[in-house]
Amino acid sequence: MIQSIANHKSTRKYKSDPIPDSILNEILLAGSRASNTGNIQAYSIIVTQNPEIKEKLWLAHLKQEMVLKAPIIITFCSDFHRVSKWCTLNNAKPGFDNFQSFMAGAIDCLLASQNVATEAIENGLGICYLGTTTYNAANIIEILSLPRLVVPVTSLVVGYPDGNTNLTDRLPLEAVIHNDNYQIFSNEKIRELYQEKEENEFYRNLVKINNKESLAQIITDIRYQAKDNRFFSKEYLKAIEDQGFMNHED
Amino acid sequence: MIQSIANHKSTRKYKSDPIPDSILNEILLAGSRASNTGNIQAYSIIVTQNPEIKEKLWLAHLKQEMVLKAPIIITFCSDFHRVSKWCTLNNAKPGFDNFQSFMAGAIDCLLASQNVATEAIENGLGICYLGTTTYNAANIIEILSLPRLVVPVTSLVVGYPDGNTNLTDRLPLEAVIHNDNYQIFSNEKIRELYQEKEENEFYRNLVKINNKESLAQIITDIRYQAKDNRFFSKEYLKAIEDQGFMNHED
Repeated sequence: MIQSIANHKSTRKYKSDPIPDSILNEILLAGSRASNTGNIQAYSIIVTQNPEIKEKLWLAHLKQEMVLKAPIIITFCSDFHRVSKWCTLNNAKPGFDNFQSFMAGAIDCLLASQNVATEAIENGLGICYLGTTTYNAANIIEILSLPRLVVPVTSLVVGYPDGNTNLTDRLPLEAVIHNDNYQIFSNEKIRELYQEKEENEFYRNLVKINNKESLAQIITDIRYQAKDNRFFSKEYLKAIEDQGFMNHED
Repeated sequence: MIQSIANHKSTRKYKSDPIPDSILNEILLAGSRASNTGNIQAYSIIVTQNPEIKEKLWLAHLKQEMVLKAPIIITFCSDFHRVSKWCTLNNAKPGFDNFQSFMAGAIDCLLASQNVATEAIENGLGICYLGTTTYNAANIIEILSLPRLVVPVTSLVVGYPDGNTNLTDRLPLEAVIHNDNYQIFSNEKIRELYQEKEENEFYRNLVKINNKESLAQIITDIRYQAKDNRFFSKEYLKAIEDQGFMNHED
């Protein structure tokens, strides 16, 4: 397996050392090589190094320390603003103010982000995805001055790792792969597939210090609570709509 | 740059030669190494080789010939079905029937898909993403028997290339990168950024044989028409809702 894929892990502690421009350029160029919708490249990538803007992003990303410490935050956006402007300039009427186009741009920017992540690791850098990008999208839109038809989808913290991080566990491959069509797992099979994870000492300790019965309760009661998920759902749908991606009437 | 990223291209003609299981396993394992939401792995990957199911997928993907010819179609899905079942079995109340969770799973499966694509190319295989996955999602859900809280987001055709394909052009990197925050391009700058693409002989010929004035008109009048985008927007939002990902009330 490609080493930088096999060794892929999330780094949460960074040195403040800057990333040389030549390396930054190379990892961004790797992003642009990814497949994209009809070769439209319906995305934009915002590379933030300015400390004042980074501090605002740190707040939007729920004060995760690495956002301040790492030299660069990269925000990946679904973008039909540039495409639409190019169309209008060429006597072509753009029709991208809809959810289908938002998704096409989201797919484009996510495939690009994974190339950036893999190439960053190849160059000795550490990375961490920020799931909080879809939590406070309206805030990020304001901080980064994103115009109509541009919505942030994910972000990467990038920098030189401070210390080592271990590879994290994964479910056995059979838990996520289905052959030909989807097979619903029995309760017994689910228990078998999650057994190794449940027995992992790190997770067992996490359950203990949080006074929970199970790792699943850490997920549902602490990390991804239903009420937060519902709140952020409405906020993200509103951001998508406010940015002009929800016009579905003829 | 990692060779398989630098050489990334879409293959549209395939030999019917099967992919050895060891290679298939390796590229899927590469997918599972990608970052994912809270290490929940909120995705499933459906690997379809059965000719009858492939023929149904071929119809859903607008009869693109490669879907029949290539030995394998891989469908990447946002999946909170498995996660929710695991939670329920562990006395944890799942709250993932919302758009935020759909997006988290969509991000997870897209990052995995790009690892699969890169590792496939590393192993001498060709790949092509199918943007049509979000067009006929309801159809794909039926074909692959996807249960509640599982929605297809993208698909990869994978197989041995029949003949060579050239690398496709990309816009200059400065067209998709913004420093610190978003800078809206002037009309003049847009023209400059798209000049090389407009002058590309392949595209000029495409414009000519379609009796259009510009490449942008190929995009807006033929490939991604507003009325189709709006239709598929409503269909995809309905599929997301029908699969249970739009419950936002307390």
